[in-house]
Amino acid sequence: MVETMEEKTIQEIKQLMQLIDQKLSSVLSSPMKHDLIHEINQWSDEKQEESESLDQFLNPWEVSAKDGGKIDYDKLVDKFGCERVDQSLIDRVHRLTSRDPHVFLRRGVFFAHRDFNEILDSYERGDKFYLYTGRGPSSEALHLGHLIPFMFTKYLQEAFKVPVVIQLTDDEKFYWSKTLTVEDTESLARENIKDIIACGFDLEKTFIFKNFDFAGKFYKNTAKVGKYVRYNKVTAIFGFSDEYSIGKIGFPPVQAAPSFASSFQHLFPGKDNLRCLIPCAIDQDPYFRMTRDVAPRLGYSKPALIESSFLPSLKAMNGKMSASNPNSAIYVTDNTKDIKKKVNDLFFICDNLLFTNSQVDIPFKYLSFFLDDDTELEHIKKEYGEGRMLSGEVKQRLAEVLIEVVERHRRARAAVTDYMVDEFMAERPLPNMFK
Amino acid sequence: MVETMEEKTIQEIKQLMQLIDQKLSSVLSSPMKHDLIHEINQWSDEKQEESESLDQFLNPWEVSAKDGGKIDYDKLVDKFGCERVDQSLIDRVHRLTSRDPHVFLRRGVFFAHRDFNEILDSYERGDKFYLYTGRGPSSEALHLGHLIPFMFTKYLQEAFKVPVVIQLTDDEKFYWSKTLTVEDTESLARENIKDIIACGFDLEKTFIFKNFDFAGKFYKNTAKVGKYVRYNKVTAIFGFSDEYSIGKIGFPPVQAAPSFASSFQHLFPGKDNLRCLIPCAIDQDPYFRMTRDVAPRLGYSKPALIESSFLPSLKAMNGKMSASNPNSAIYVTDNTKDIKKKVNDLFFICDNLLFTNSQVDIPFKYLSFFLDDDTELEHIKKEYGEGRMLSGEVKQRLAEVLIEVVERHRRARAAVTDYMVDEFMAERPLPNMFK
Repeated sequence: MVETMEEKTIQEIKQLMQLIDQKLSSVLSSPMKHDLIHEINQWSDEKQEESESLDQFLNPWEVSAKDGGKIDYDKLVDKFGCERVDQSLIDRVHRLTSRDPHVFLRRGVFFAHRDFNEILDSYERGDKFYLYTGRGPSSEALHLGHLIPFMFTKYLQEAFKVPVVIQLTDDEKFYWSKTLTVEDTESLARENIKDIIACGFDLEKTFIFKNFDFAGKFYKNTAKVGKYVRYNKVTAIFGFSDEYSIGKIGFPPVQAAPSFASSFQHLFPGKDNLRCLIPCAIDQDPYFRMTRDVAPRLGYSKPALIESSFLPSLKAMNGKMSASNPNSAIYVTDNTKDIKKKVNDLFFICDNLLFTNSQVDIPFKYLSFFLDDDTELEHIKKEYGEGRMLSGEVKQRLAEVLIEVVERHRRARAAVTDYMVDEFMAERPLPNMFK
Repeated sequence: MVETMEEKTIQEIKQLMQLIDQKLSSVLSSPMKHDLIHEINQWSDEKQEESESLDQFLNPWEVSAKDGGKIDYDKLVDKFGCERVDQSLIDRVHRLTSRDPHVFLRRGVFFAHRDFNEILDSYERGDKFYLYTGRGPSSEALHLGHLIPFMFTKYLQEAFKVPVVIQLTDDEKFYWSKTLTVEDTESLARENIKDIIACGFDLEKTFIFKNFDFAGKFYKNTAKVGKYVRYNKVTAIFGFSDEYSIGKIGFPPVQAAPSFASSFQHLFPGKDNLRCLIPCAIDQDPYFRMTRDVAPRLGYSKPALIESSFLPSLKAMNGKMSASNPNSAIYVTDNTKDIKKKVNDLFFICDNLLFTNSQVDIPFKYLSFFLDDDTELEHIKKEYGEGRMLSGEVKQRLAEVLIEVVERHRRARAAVTDYMVDEFMAERPLPNMFK
């Protein structure tokens, strides 16, 4: 076996951890040791938060952001072996759905896929599919990057008239956190679900669940996946090592199982071969590569994927890539003043560095994610790029756009009641899900 | 780290398996390779069957039967760190329950324990507990050895007036079998449950479940255990290695979780600290050592254990320790003729080898497990041991005893309907469970 660069890095990290262990064993004072370990725990929790944040993009496996936060997505497509979403595919979606493709599709936010063309082939023949996405409930306040998969999934639901299942991995979050209890991750999940519902999902076509409640219902599929994935496979995919808990090691099949229609007997009885399309961020690809590898052994279809890049950190240009820095992202809880200030600070950085290249310029990048009007964006790109538009004007437009997105979300979220959360989470048939 | 003998053996086995892999890779004909692998799969399934049978006693971890099937149980108590069940403990059970202790307790079949004395302490103070036992559904026909934990648990239920929960690990069996489907292990579980019910459990005090149905209900406790058990710990306890599936690796917490009262919200709501007593064969000790290690971190009481030795194989004396040999055990499906023949064959072997020592003599051992009358057993022991009673007479008495046990079981099992199975498995409160 050839040792890859990633395996070497993992080895080095393990050696460093062993060094910490050695040093720790020489600490004899027990209160001191206690404090030290508490610190290590917090540190380790922070690593986890970071891995889930927009700053540290593809982690803990295989790819991480370098060069000031810029990810080489082309390299990634090659490495992961997925396919590019090209213009002909976008045109095809346009034709099949008879509506403008979503801004995230037009602008290349969802840039890679696996078998999405097959989903469209069978859709064209009159076969339906279902959508599956999800979230690890990590913190109460989501930022705009967290909403991207949900905004896009909501669009696909509307455009294709198909059902959506949404998994909240409160169990995963519990395994990885050293400080959160089961009850904590459950209540974070419920808070996150309010934000998800606020994205506009259709109650008649959407089932939202969290694993601690519902994973038992698809335990057979979890077991089937778990039976055919070996430990040495998950160490290779996810970088697990012998010090990891068996909770963490046993988790990937729980994320895999909802890719199979038979996991939802209340939704798809007798439709075990209904195909699944998973809109997600590209960092989730390893889970579903594993799922796709194992599907044929279980007699199931492989889930198709459509995968997004990441909304860059506001601070990506100044190297301050800390997830714990609330200024690195626009949160859905930010008020108008917060957003204006963040956009202002952002421009200050860019102005200093004299960035006017729309490819790497963060404010322009943000506009390309959230400004729906193609003509206006093209206009700004040209004028700003050629120096005729001042950064102050772009800044003002971006602030307006972001304020509108956040305000719309905030209003929608405020209207989400606990009763509605219960409704979306109720295990019920969805008779109108394909209408 | 000092490498133990067991770790060395595991290493050697792994090396042999690698050697098989190497050889297998040089097989280029694909039908030939297919057949070979099928054979290896069957061989591996047989190993599993054996590990569950009465022949290969303590497997795959730590202790296996040597010297013609004789296990040194004293050594085991030392090795595992559990305690001997002594006469004063048996007398205490007698006093507390106001009835004769079960033959399995009087004769040292249940010979070891962990904290059983604490359970009795708190029982004496008026605190209750619940019983937890289980079975991996491996084959439709059970032998008498399989029934021992259930017969004993049923006695404890009656004597202490406490509820029983019984787990069928259809998931575990699915992980380990290369040939059984989920549906196969589920239907084996239902067949086994009929035999379990036939042992006389009280419907008002007994909840029987199989994991594929019910494990989702205690997933939070499974996750709590899984979070605090590291991979390198389970490799040490169970001899798992990197080639094992993550299904197998993730399983032990599913067996651990029912040790905690909060896993049964329909039975013990608000009684999270109700203590648990687990009657089981000694080979299950590693699971519950793991459980006991982790319990304090979860804020739960450690489960107490009372552990049995094994009913020896009928063929233990002639070295033919194959589980696939139906003559090595008395099955609950054996008819009178079968039993008479097996007992006859048994005696023939013993006569040939001139065994008259009641300590190692298999027929006498069987009488000590199943002949309830202490006076009669003492009489036979004396007369037979001193040569005044002929082996033919002992043989006849043993056949009578075994026929009676098996016939009673067969009648009871024939009366168990599918409706009754559903009743025992219904998730329901048991208002009279402590009466």
